Amino acid sequence: MIYNFKSDYLEGAHPSILQLLEATNLTQQEGYGYDEYSKKAKDLIKRLCNAEGEVFFVCGGTFANLVSIAHFLRPYEAVVCADTAHIATHEAGAIEASGHKLITVKNREGKIFPDDIKRVLKYFKDEHRVKPAMVYVSNATEFGTVYSEDEMMQLGEFCKENNLLFYVDGARIGNAAAYLGYRDFGFVSKYCDAFYIGATKNGGLIGEAIVINNDKLAVDFRYSIKQRGGLLAKGRLLAVQFLGLFEDNLYFKLAERANKMAKKMADAISNLGFEFYIQPQTNLLFPIFPLKFAKKLNEYYGFYIIDEFDDKCVVRLVTSWASKEEYVDKFTEDLKSLLEVCD
Amino acid sequence: MIYNFKSDYLEGAHPSILQLLEATNLTQQEGYGYDEYSKKAKDLIKRLCNAEGEVFFVCGGTFANLVSIAHFLRPYEAVVCADTAHIATHEAGAIEASGHKLITVKNREGKIFPDDIKRVLKYFKDEHRVKPAMVYVSNATEFGTVYSEDEMMQLGEFCKENNLLFYVDGARIGNAAAYLGYRDFGFVSKYCDAFYIGATKNGGLIGEAIVINNDKLAVDFRYSIKQRGGLLAKGRLLAVQFLGLFEDNLYFKLAERANKMAKKMADAISNLGFEFYIQPQTNLLFPIFPLKFAKKLNEYYGFYIIDEFDDKCVVRLVTSWASKEEYVDKFTEDLKSLLEVCD
Amino acid sequence: MIYNFKSDYLEGAHPSILQLLEATNLTQQEGYGYDEYSKKAKDLIKRLCNAEGEVFFVCGGTFANLVSIAHFLRPYEAVVCADTAHIATHEAGAIEASGHKLITVKNREGKIFPDDIKRVLKYFKDEHRVKPAMVYVSNATEFGTVYSEDEMMQLGEFCKENNLLFYVDGARIGNAAAYLGYRDFGFVSKYCDAFYIGATKNGGLIGEAIVINNDKLAVDFRYSIKQRGGLLAKGRLLAVQFLGLFEDNLYFKLAERANKMAKKMADAISNLGFEFYIQPQTNLLFPIFPLKFAKKLNEYYGFYIIDEFDDKCVVRLVTSWASKEEYVDKFTEDLKSLLEVCD
Amino acid sequence: MIYNFKSDYLEGAHPSILQLLEATNLTQQEGYGYDEYSKKAKDLIKRLCNAEGEVFFVCGGTFANLVSIAHFLRPYEAVVCADTAHIATHEAGAIEASGHKLITVKNREGKIFPDDIKRVLKYFKDEHRVKPAMVYVSNATEFGTVYSEDEMMQLGEFCKENNLLFYVDGARIGNAAAYLGYRDFGFVSKYCDAFYIGATKNGGLIGEAIVINNDKLAVDFRYSIKQRGGLLAKGRLLAVQFLGLFEDNLYFKLAERANKMAKKMADAISNLGFEFYIQPQTNLLFPIFPLKFAKKLNEYYGFYIIDEFDDKCVVRLVTSWASKEEYVDKFTEDLKSLLEVCD
Repeated sequence: MIYNFKSDYLEGAHPSILQLLEATNLTQQEGYGYDEYSKKAKDLIKRLCNAEGEVFFVCGGTFANLVSIAHFLRPYEAVVCADTAHIATHEAGAIEASGHKLITVKNREGKIFPDDIKRVLKYFKDEHRVKPAMVYVSNATEFGTVYSEDEMMQLGEFCKENNLLFYVDGARIGNAAAYLGYRDFGFVSKYCDAFYIGATKNGGLIGEAIVINNDKLAVDFRYSIKQRGGLLAKGRLLAVQFLGLFEDNLYFKLAERANKMAKKMADAISNLGFEFYIQPQTNLLFPIFPLKFAKKLNEYYGFYIIDEFDDKCVVRLVTSWASKEEYVDKFTEDLKSLLEVCD
Repeated sequence: MIYNFKSDYLEGAHPSILQLLEATNLTQQEGYGYDEYSKKAKDLIKRLCNAEGEVFFVCGGTFANLVSIAHFLRPYEAVVCADTAHIATHEAGAIEASGHKLITVKNREGKIFPDDIKRVLKYFKDEHRVKPAMVYVSNATEFGTVYSEDEMMQLGEFCKENNLLFYVDGARIGNAAAYLGYRDFGFVSKYCDAFYIGATKNGGLIGEAIVINNDKLAVDFRYSIKQRGGLLAKGRLLAVQFLGLFEDNLYFKLAERANKMAKKMADAISNLGFEFYIQPQTNLLFPIFPLKFAKKLNEYYGFYIIDEFDDKCVVRLVTSWASKEEYVDKFTEDLKSLLEVCD
Repeated sequence: MIYNFKSDYLEGAHPSILQLLEATNLTQQEGYGYDEYSKKAKDLIKRLCNAEGEVFFVCGGTFANLVSIAHFLRPYEAVVCADTAHIATHEAGAIEASGHKLITVKNREGKIFPDDIKRVLKYFKDEHRVKPAMVYVSNATEFGTVYSEDEMMQLGEFCKENNLLFYVDGARIGNAAAYLGYRDFGFVSKYCDAFYIGATKNGGLIGEAIVINNDKLAVDFRYSIKQRGGLLAKGRLLAVQFLGLFEDNLYFKLAERANKMAKKMADAISNLGFEFYIQPQTNLLFPIFPLKFAKKLNEYYGFYIIDEFDDKCVVRLVTSWASKEEYVDKFTEDLKSLLEVCD
Repeated sequence: MIYNFKSDYLEGAHPSILQLLEATNLTQQEGYGYDEYSKKAKDLIKRLCNAEGEVFFVCGGTFANLVSIAHFLRPYEAVVCADTAHIATHEAGAIEASGHKLITVKNREGKIFPDDIKRVLKYFKDEHRVKPAMVYVSNATEFGTVYSEDEMMQLGEFCKENNLLFYVDGARIGNAAAYLGYRDFGFVSKYCDAFYIGATKNGGLIGEAIVINNDKLAVDFRYSIKQRGGLLAKGRLLAVQFLGLFEDNLYFKLAERANKMAKKMADAISNLGFEFYIQPQTNLLFPIFPLKFAKKLNEYYGFYIIDEFDDKCVVRLVTSWASKEEYVDKFTEDLKSLLEVCD
């Protein structure tokens, strides 16, 4: 294989994070998140949120979603989300395993809107059904599309009016910010009860920062993290990721680069005459290729074929902060060669 | 504060691990534990176990216990353990939160033996009570004491005869090995269905390696890890800890050093005429000090006072691979000075 | 209100059950299902199943589904069912609350078939998704439609080939048997791993009989019933329901009568020129009425309007063993009068 | 066997309940607890509680404890109870299965007091342990002993001061009331957040009435009952039990008779020179017999031998509303004969 575009977690960490790990390594620190780096990293994050909130570090996106939703909801309460939501498709039923039903809504390019949610709510009236209590969206979505600040605001208002919590999965919130031109998290944080900022897919080795803007939801949250096995003795490891990423806007710069690489690739693909299953916005591309092209390319480049129909298929290509531009170029050149050979 | 003896997770990682992180950082690797480092690290560990088994890496001791016990047991099955067992006291009810009752047995210096277990089993006969299905011990224990290989074997045999699984918490298995003079894990692995090897308290930044020797128990284990939010996208981070630790016996050397520092400290404390609540074996010391001494020392050294009676108290002192010998010496000198002042 | 067609649990028990309760009332009996009536009732049921199996009595349909599914599945395993399945819509998320995801399949008149299931299975390949492990159908369905013995057999074979358990919700299995012309449960029992026979909707005061044909699934089942709070001290109460119902084929006769009343009503409705949303087979009717007719009738008769569109609506009418024929007739006469008034 | 003193649920229902079942049997009633009998029965119960509260009917004591505790507590919260508490010993780990740890306190004749509780609370300070949030006692206890109104009040006050919920298991609350001379539930209800009144052991066929005095705890309680499979379609069955039992004080009269039979038996046993393991107060007797006497008697009378030591044993004898006085007398006569033979 020449190069891998399967995902945005194929490399380790941005080098500056490893440097910070080394620089801080032998200081003695309190355990379980009471170290000085955790304190500093939380302060940095709060400043970027334009909202009062509490910050908690955990070890993964599935864990972040699971511990938050399970902590926020009563046992019979349910989450409304897109049928393509990560929690509904790629988290091994973690939310149901914590006892909560997911009420899925047909997505529109990965997104859902107040009207979509309104349509399902009317069926939930009494204890024979679950009680819808939260709306979950991902921003950027699992298709790489982005909710604008206005759309976030409308979802937030809808939730308030309908007595629903509003939770945002920010595994790729950096890519959303980069697409919208922001270098802070206000466009999400101002409108939701809680969200998380993912480090793993944007330059960190590990780590998600859960931001809880709703005071009541934050009460005893450390109990839930601990009880589910997510309170690291060496909390400094997580803190240092975020310290490094929010030094000098590194987090946003890395996402901007990932999006830029994707855009370069998308433009080239488009110029070659291919269509996209979903219009590209961030670092996930879903071009439609002839199946035989995809299979040939797949011998040299890592990526997923996510759907097939007749002699065509939808491919998922992912760029990241670490993607090498030469391979982004080479990929589209090889695609072009395939085209020429076939003509 | 001069120096901290509160625990063995106060510093970061052994420097060779950070070096290995750096050396491997920018290679592209498959996610979710299918990277090449995970494969290598698992092979190293299997070789040290003298038993066929499968190895899984997770992010913490509570998580390791939780995911293992919840995966191994049926919903109405229970765990027999010491009343001082970590799962019974310091894991926030994680096992009960996964649905399983703990049947606690009065410990003897942190340990339990077949006879202790036999006495409680007779009360569990039908579905009005839970069904005892597993014995859990920690080796080294929460009091730093060690089960010998012979004791492990007897527990293992007892469990087999009584149709109980045998699970060992090895958060400090390195210290147990060091005390017994071993540089492999056969003394535990040969006798139990599953155990975990802790990196966090012995030189790693993060990471526990669960070893499952019982084939049936390993089936679908990755599902359980994923569903509980513990499958890291960058599994390489965990693998590299163990790669580093099992290169050239580093893991055992670090534990030997931790024990040696504790022994030096214990001998000095003993020579000053103080008694121990538990006879020291590994890197946890529980000397009995006059309460006023303990409080004075606590101004300069980090440690926990775990129990008080009259004018005395039991103190917990912990050494690690990273403990500086000069402060081990200084601590006992300061203790001696206190003694002289009071005479 | 003149009369209620809302459901088939509006009256108490068939009088012969109350008589049996009285006749057996003051004998001393062992508790928790070890009474002599439980033994006799289980034998009667086994004889009607044409399959080896174990029988357990519980207090309700939701409980029967919950305790069975939770006992049969591993935590990360999921159930495939119709989007209209009772467990997916009207059991308050009980299955998810026990930790298991439901994978819903678009129903066809309340039913699902091997091809429908096959289409969804292909997406479930590894631990990032749940593991499909069971197919659940209701017979009769929530729309009153019936799977024939041949359809049951095909589902059963499909499940075996695909390593899926096959579970049947028989809340209205009597109505299915009556429709198909059977007076035993072989048409279901021969093809599934487990199913339940509902008494509540067919003449009993309370009680569901879970029949487990798969030996392995029955192991320790009483533990699960007890742990979920469903093991009655006076198990005789449940046993007596089934003793009464399977004396002289009462159970089947009652269902036959319920279906007959429904058929009479359906024919009359049809003769008046109304269509049905679902073609009537058993004791649930879903006629389409003008909304204003439905609202007028609803002043005098209890029933649910389950959907509205434009000026029409779908109504749910339910007959039972206890429905009085005079009111069945009167309902259709009143409907006719409404028609005449409006002409 | 001549006669059975194993428990107080060996017979069916008091005849007046069966009569009421028959009298109400064929009326059409709303399902799921919205029938008119439920309304009336709840009103009767509220009147007997001397406290504002909401009443919910469920099918068993284990279910009542489980649904209440699981509904009232947050996932990481724990229950403090006696080591002999029914939830800790004979409910198959139902509370732990719902996720909550039990913190057990050494009982004193089946009871626990504020000082006992205070001693354990001090160890629970942060998220490394669970959070004690409720005190559970049974009144009468599992040993048949009774908390006085004053003791209830002190426990209630202690709980309020310590921010703990106070929950009382009233499986045998009738026997406690009878011992104290009350014919209402004020002696419990005034001091606790919630409790349940058991029908099963005092004349009903089935049924427990959960009384919730704390408004916040009652919110959405029907969701929890439904989700755990405990909402009966024919709720009238449960309601009729309580309607019958609270008509003309029947409930209290039945308990008075059970206690009276026990007292007669206890006095006779005592006069024959035998001691009691626990001083008799209600309908459970724990005499100490020579083991050979117990075994001989056990051939003719049903009862449990609950502990053996040397040549003696502790026996559990239970009387009920239905115990026949002639057999109460005959039992002690037979015991006397054994004594004479052995002299």
